[in-house]
Amino acid sequence: MKFDTLRWQPPASFEILDQRALPLRETYLRLHSAAAAAEAIRDLAVRGAPAIGCAAAFGIAVEAYRLRDHAHTAFAAALEAGFEVLGASRPTAVNLFWALGRMRAAWENVAHADIDAIVSALAREAQAVFAEDVEANRRMGAHGAALVPDGARILTHCNAGALATAGHGTALGVIRSAVAAGRRVHVYADETRPVLQGARLTAWELHRDGIPVTLLPDVAAASLLARGLVDIVIVGADRIAANGDVANKIGTYPLAVLARRHGVPFFVAAPLATFDFTLATGAAIPIEERDAAEVRGYGTEVWAPDVPVFNPAFDVTPAELVTAVVTERGVVHAPSTDSLAMLNRPA
Amino acid sequence: MKFDTLRWQPPASFEILDQRALPLRETYLRLHSAAAAAEAIRDLAVRGAPAIGCAAAFGIAVEAYRLRDHAHTAFAAALEAGFEVLGASRPTAVNLFWALGRMRAAWENVAHADIDAIVSALAREAQAVFAEDVEANRRMGAHGAALVPDGARILTHCNAGALATAGHGTALGVIRSAVAAGRRVHVYADETRPVLQGARLTAWELHRDGIPVTLLPDVAAASLLARGLVDIVIVGADRIAANGDVANKIGTYPLAVLARRHGVPFFVAAPLATFDFTLATGAAIPIEERDAAEVRGYGTEVWAPDVPVFNPAFDVTPAELVTAVVTERGVVHAPSTDSLAMLNRPA
Repeated sequence: MKFDTLRWQPPASFEILDQRALPLRETYLRLHSAAAAAEAIRDLAVRGAPAIGCAAAFGIAVEAYRLRDHAHTAFAAALEAGFEVLGASRPTAVNLFWALGRMRAAWENVAHADIDAIVSALAREAQAVFAEDVEANRRMGAHGAALVPDGARILTHCNAGALATAGHGTALGVIRSAVAAGRRVHVYADETRPVLQGARLTAWELHRDGIPVTLLPDVAAASLLARGLVDIVIVGADRIAANGDVANKIGTYPLAVLARRHGVPFFVAAPLATFDFTLATGAAIPIEERDAAEVRGYGTEVWAPDVPVFNPAFDVTPAELVTAVVTERGVVHAPSTDSLAMLNRPA
Repeated sequence: MKFDTLRWQPPASFEILDQRALPLRETYLRLHSAAAAAEAIRDLAVRGAPAIGCAAAFGIAVEAYRLRDHAHTAFAAALEAGFEVLGASRPTAVNLFWALGRMRAAWENVAHADIDAIVSALAREAQAVFAEDVEANRRMGAHGAALVPDGARILTHCNAGALATAGHGTALGVIRSAVAAGRRVHVYADETRPVLQGARLTAWELHRDGIPVTLLPDVAAASLLARGLVDIVIVGADRIAANGDVANKIGTYPLAVLARRHGVPFFVAAPLATFDFTLATGAAIPIEERDAAEVRGYGTEVWAPDVPVFNPAFDVTPAELVTAVVTERGVVHAPSTDSLAMLNRPA
């Protein structure tokens, strides 16, 4: 890859590639606080469940540095507020809460040390969250590549690529690893309204890597499937419940229904950090409703200013429609509460 | 309705409401030739299967007037060329070919009369095509209103409204008639990428008529259905094969699959002019592939200039997924070659 989704800039800041401007402009935003990180997450300057987790971890690390001159009690109260603002930035991707949990545990381990030691520990933990995500993506790629036959025509939705993670990608990471292993592929990328992550991010990211990609309106995916032009579907996830129900970008569920109708395997690639074993099923996953402005127009054109909008950012695909889940610990076929339980244990 | 989709301006021209500019601007285009009508159809200034048929009929009528000073042989050759340019404008909506067939038959009836008589006959026939379409929509509305329960939450796709017809509408005509009969409804309008007929036309048309409408990205329709928020789905059609397979705007087929999965009735409203009894099944319906520019961006923003695009304008919904077809002759439940055969007879 010739870009960084996130870059640690010790000790005071980190940078993110501003995904709102892609692919027209490659601009990096430098962030120095938890509030700035939360705003970047909320506004989709950084998006994708694993990348959101990394941004939250970096956000806490730079917030701790920003607060380094405070006395111990004031530091703790202000850092607590940083956890709160980040925790409220977006509701669905569980990686956000997982990463904040990691940072909180790292803090608690050294809570009585001096502030400099806390700041250092949080910086180390954020870098560990980042490095482990890249490693998890590489392992997912290695496990998942076996699911991609030579010559595969692969349909994907939204962006589950390097841009959605610390690097390599989840669903696109599996495709990258398959390509590295010599498999020829052709990717069909849903444009993914309303925010167009497929058109703006996935098409850009794959085209830049020289992986053949064709762009299509989301509603045309059914025709691709009906014409027998798709061998596998692979997507990422924002939260996976204990039973294997998958919350992912709005439009994932109808794809899974259509893949099943046409006998095409439907794969989900996600690190363990995306699993939420506290939720028995997907029915309990909170689904973010985003601003109507995303749907009322694009850019400067607004078509329906007075009309209400239904704009859930995610949907839930029942586990029964998921052929297999690819994780860094291996591939779980026919995911269920039983088959996924092995993932909920220390390695 | 406070607008005209098409207006006959005898004897030399007709006007269309330029749907490319809606809803930002209401502009009427005045057309004086078959070539201008064909260009308006090709560029989607006028769209919707029945409206395309009317535009083609008017296009022939004004072309005949334009050629009125030609000698008989030259007139016939030039008018023939007008039929050709209109016949090549768009391939899927059969109403285009049906309307041209009507105009050709009207011409043949008076082919040996003087040119003025031919011009008059073609003007009358075009007005008849137009008036009969309004009448067919009214009858469809009367038949279809019975399918709309009080309080119905209705999902629709693309624009099958007054803007797609000579007036009243097919799918939206059924909704209008139900409202006129006192039924309370709430319409959910898919935005309908890539050309956004739902966002730009259906939301505008219903909002203007005071019919409650909520706009959504196409991919969110599955979530509406999964949450139990839809009582019926109703769409129009561009061509219906003898067995009831329905070609309609891309994205119709996945809606039908999802409606079936969630036990929601899926209705198609279309006049007899939309049926093509020469095709046994939908597999033989030609599906227009439109320009990649429709998908590569919107307005001035272009996201993926170097990436190929899959952009079929229509898909085919198998008859088995269609609960009923609403026509001006009545409602045909469980459409099939047998049940639809009654429509293929003179009234």
